[in-house]
Amino acid sequence: MSTHTTGNDIFQLAQRLWPLPRSLTGGGTRETLSMLSETVDGLNICEVPSGTQCFDWIVPNEWNIRDGWIVTPEGTKIADFKSNNLHVVGYSSAVDTTLELEELQQHLHSLPENPDAIPYVTSYYNENWGFCLSHNQRRTLRSGRYQVYIDSTLQPGSMTYGELLIPGISNKEILLSTYICHPSMANNELSGPCVTAFICKWLNSRVNNRYSFRVLFIPETIGSIYYISKHLDQLRNNTIAGMVVSCVGDERMYSYISSRQKNTLADELALHILKHRGFAYKAYSFLDRGSDERQYCSPGVDLPVIGFCRSKYGTYPEYHTSLDNLSLITAQGLEGSYDFIQLWIEMIEAHCYPKIRTLCEPQLGKRGLYPTLSTLESARIVQKMLNVITYSDGSRSLLEIADYIGAPIWDVHEICKDLQKHELLDMNPI
Amino acid sequence: MSTHTTGNDIFQLAQRLWPLPRSLTGGGTRETLSMLSETVDGLNICEVPSGTQCFDWIVPNEWNIRDGWIVTPEGTKIADFKSNNLHVVGYSSAVDTTLELEELQQHLHSLPENPDAIPYVTSYYNENWGFCLSHNQRRTLRSGRYQVYIDSTLQPGSMTYGELLIPGISNKEILLSTYICHPSMANNELSGPCVTAFICKWLNSRVNNRYSFRVLFIPETIGSIYYISKHLDQLRNNTIAGMVVSCVGDERMYSYISSRQKNTLADELALHILKHRGFAYKAYSFLDRGSDERQYCSPGVDLPVIGFCRSKYGTYPEYHTSLDNLSLITAQGLEGSYDFIQLWIEMIEAHCYPKIRTLCEPQLGKRGLYPTLSTLESARIVQKMLNVITYSDGSRSLLEIADYIGAPIWDVHEICKDLQKHELLDMNPI
Amino acid sequence: MSTHTTGNDIFQLAQRLWPLPRSLTGGGTRETLSMLSETVDGLNICEVPSGTQCFDWIVPNEWNIRDGWIVTPEGTKIADFKSNNLHVVGYSSAVDTTLELEELQQHLHSLPENPDAIPYVTSYYNENWGFCLSHNQRRTLRSGRYQVYIDSTLQPGSMTYGELLIPGISNKEILLSTYICHPSMANNELSGPCVTAFICKWLNSRVNNRYSFRVLFIPETIGSIYYISKHLDQLRNNTIAGMVVSCVGDERMYSYISSRQKNTLADELALHILKHRGFAYKAYSFLDRGSDERQYCSPGVDLPVIGFCRSKYGTYPEYHTSLDNLSLITAQGLEGSYDFIQLWIEMIEAHCYPKIRTLCEPQLGKRGLYPTLSTLESARIVQKMLNVITYSDGSRSLLEIADYIGAPIWDVHEICKDLQKHELLDMNPI
Repeated sequence: MSTHTTGNDIFQLAQRLWPLPRSLTGGGTRETLSMLSETVDGLNICEVPSGTQCFDWIVPNEWNIRDGWIVTPEGTKIADFKSNNLHVVGYSSAVDTTLELEELQQHLHSLPENPDAIPYVTSYYNENWGFCLSHNQRRTLRSGRYQVYIDSTLQPGSMTYGELLIPGISNKEILLSTYICHPSMANNELSGPCVTAFICKWLNSRVNNRYSFRVLFIPETIGSIYYISKHLDQLRNNTIAGMVVSCVGDERMYSYISSRQKNTLADELALHILKHRGFAYKAYSFLDRGSDERQYCSPGVDLPVIGFCRSKYGTYPEYHTSLDNLSLITAQGLEGSYDFIQLWIEMIEAHCYPKIRTLCEPQLGKRGLYPTLSTLESARIVQKMLNVITYSDGSRSLLEIADYIGAPIWDVHEICKDLQKHELLDMNPI
Repeated sequence: MSTHTTGNDIFQLAQRLWPLPRSLTGGGTRETLSMLSETVDGLNICEVPSGTQCFDWIVPNEWNIRDGWIVTPEGTKIADFKSNNLHVVGYSSAVDTTLELEELQQHLHSLPENPDAIPYVTSYYNENWGFCLSHNQRRTLRSGRYQVYIDSTLQPGSMTYGELLIPGISNKEILLSTYICHPSMANNELSGPCVTAFICKWLNSRVNNRYSFRVLFIPETIGSIYYISKHLDQLRNNTIAGMVVSCVGDERMYSYISSRQKNTLADELALHILKHRGFAYKAYSFLDRGSDERQYCSPGVDLPVIGFCRSKYGTYPEYHTSLDNLSLITAQGLEGSYDFIQLWIEMIEAHCYPKIRTLCEPQLGKRGLYPTLSTLESARIVQKMLNVITYSDGSRSLLEIADYIGAPIWDVHEICKDLQKHELLDMNPI
Repeated sequence: MSTHTTGNDIFQLAQRLWPLPRSLTGGGTRETLSMLSETVDGLNICEVPSGTQCFDWIVPNEWNIRDGWIVTPEGTKIADFKSNNLHVVGYSSAVDTTLELEELQQHLHSLPENPDAIPYVTSYYNENWGFCLSHNQRRTLRSGRYQVYIDSTLQPGSMTYGELLIPGISNKEILLSTYICHPSMANNELSGPCVTAFICKWLNSRVNNRYSFRVLFIPETIGSIYYISKHLDQLRNNTIAGMVVSCVGDERMYSYISSRQKNTLADELALHILKHRGFAYKAYSFLDRGSDERQYCSPGVDLPVIGFCRSKYGTYPEYHTSLDNLSLITAQGLEGSYDFIQLWIEMIEAHCYPKIRTLCEPQLGKRGLYPTLSTLESARIVQKMLNVITYSDGSRSLLEIADYIGAPIWDVHEICKDLQKHELLDMNPI
């Protein structure tokens, strides 16, 4: 019996979104955003016409699919889109014909090394059609004529994305970005938009956010490139920290992908939290990037954006196959990611350069800050407070102090607030 | 039979100071300073009235004690102040009463894990009284009424400290600080003021000290806070290196405690000497600080002050107990510390940025600097001289050159003096 | 059967130069330069009069030797200069006398620990005479009168060196320096001038060298000191990278000696090439210097000059003995060094700060830069191109990008040229 209330809510949202046939564009994505807006108050759903130029790219035509299948010479319907939307290659053009197995094979995709899995394949920028199926099933196909049918359209329309803007006291912004362009896969991708939706709900519930928030639910690559092309100055001038949220639903581990700049507050806080929470985690270099941090961090854009995952895309065996299903993600896994992102945001908001007011150490005893009972534990507490005091010289950030004295930043933050209450310290927010 | 002449002199001074009942204030401390002034010509003994405000602190009342003991129900006198001044808790108020063992226990201190030792306990800022005794003795106490007696006074008076100022050619200063507020304990504390007194004697004997010297014999914490509060600008403007001298009498090892700034000349020289002397030593971070470097290095004071010890306070089993007695310290241990401090001072005075005068290597042979007999040893000597020459580019300090070429700074200093004599090099003192 | 064509040519040049009796000055060195000029078009052979002052040094008298030998009491001629020019100590004055073995011993040099080798000994700045022979031979000498004869002259004349200047598009220069002052020894020294001569031949054959080249064939120490003293401003203003070429003929390993500044382009490229070529190599600190980098890097001269060797001088057992003969060097060993220097020069010329032109990633697919066949190898190629793109932000050099993404600089250079061809990137040469 799980007690992960928020995790359960997130999981239920993922279950509802599961069957929708998402892609770069089209109805499945539009419905996904509409369903997310039930959780995300104020989500602005935007349409970008096909053919819109954005930097070196062009928004592709809109793809919609209604059905797709193969009938074998024996009359069996296989690779049925309605049973699993991974069966049809993404952006397949329409087809309705019969052909020999040999010819059909050019249009089939399977994974010999993972023979039970249906692979996830797309052909966004090369007009084509194809089917994906398990290698075990493919090996049963006999010679003969096959009927193939795909009922899809690829024509001018629009690309759809969602944007939530929450103004804060400062116009400096924290950016969250997640993608909504993969069909029925759970860790990569539903975990991302679902956790992010509940982070939005939490942010919407707070009063007086210190910073403004910009949260994007976009198709990967073309979505972020379009968005950056339209908001470049705003993003460059105001973004103080950002995160691409992806593959955040399983329980195996945590992963952090460095920003291109490497040592931003976003990076250092993520690493600090992973370390001090005692999580099993892996820190990846920007060389291991793979999602929209590629665009946010590109030269000339240069946003301080990190990637955050549980098991990182490309590293777990179910990745980009039908095995990345709802049994891979859990309420506990989702909630762990939610908690991490929440703490990361709170600690960015806490960022400051504390400065002690007294010269020499203050006399803690007369303020009741010195424990009367002298035990090892109380000595440790006093020592931690004295360490915070001695490094609160106005030149070190809260995080630098925490790292230097080897304490979690949330503990140091509490101590600083306590000292501030006693008028011994100024927090000096930036 | 020891040949440690200076060490023996230091040890004898410690023996004479041993019985005096030192504390933050009072006659024992005053007598201690008076006895030190026999060795330290020019020691200025200062009195600071009780109640004087210094930063966040107030100078406490003066405490004087004449006697103290317990008489057991069996009529035995125990915990007799006159046999060991650790028996009475520091700053105990006067008492003269009888009470049940159960009630007395609230006022007793012992160490179950170190049952032969009398602990050292104080209650400076909480008016109270108490006795310290060995845990073995405490366990023999039987129920019944006990007579307790402490003949002490705690009333307005003054805090006493000693200051020695030796003007040098430069008004830039080297600061030495040691404390004189602990009763009869040897490594922590008598080793500190006794070694420092003999360093003063040596400094007084020199003509033309390059730098000025400021040496303080003060009660710990309140003494340094008071002193800083009165001389802040002078200390901040002129101090180029400083050292807190404490626990410098045993032979077990050497210890260095980093300044808060970490990479000052004081720090780097101390580490260099420890390393190149081949001493067993431990380098502690400023996080392990515990004595007056806490105040000298505090934010806004920011002096380049390190801590120097043999076995560091808090790390050896006899610390703050009656077992820290004269058998723990030796003439050899004291003299090792004396030698270290002397060398540290000499090398601070030697600090410079040597600059070779020739372009390309000078021709050593024509000046007799190249050995005529070519042996491995002579090749090593020439190579060391050429290394000094090649890094004497005016941008590197003597210490940086020594560290870079892996030679002791005193060797590099001799080579530089030799090259200067041949008009090949300028020492460029800062 | 070796296919090392260039290596064979270099080896044959070494064979021709082998017998000449080189020294700091004199006919052997003059003939050596004359023979080198057959390969090095434009080699300017210069004469510097004895007695010329250069910084702290004076050009010595010119030494010429025609013959030298010992006749034993038994009438055997030994230590015959004509059989091996190492037999006579370099710069020996003339002698023609008989003397007892005991007296002769003062003038003999041998190596007890290397008893088959004739040592190489000189006495440039101390007028003297002497013979070198194997220790095994020396041990056979019996008491009696020995006849000794050296037919040499040491008198005012000149010191000879060679200089090649190749103007490039830029007046910034790459400096190569090698020495021509050792008699018949192969790795140290013939490998150096012979490899360098063929590098000159290659440089002479190129059109439009990006940088100018300055190549020096000089006697060690006094040659470089003289040359620096005459061209100090030119060298300081224009040299962007330099290399002392020495001991580059054997096959055992590669060696790099750091410049004094340590992190120059010359240094970092050398290390990068050694690492990415997969060579067995050793990187030496400037503390291990021993050749003319001592002068080029000295304070106030400060050129970015590294040392390059196969087995470094002083580290291999045949060094400075008759065992350093033509059997120690090979066509393959010489050609490996030639290839290394060539690549080092090419990559210095390629030095630039690439800058991508697009914001966000360019769309590689529409330019045919994205492989249509998706394999692990093609994914690796795309990833490498994307890595080059993402770090081509105009602030990182080609070498820094290569080091960061872990690829050879020559691969990164090819990718940049490809992207430049597609107008996606500017090379921004410095």
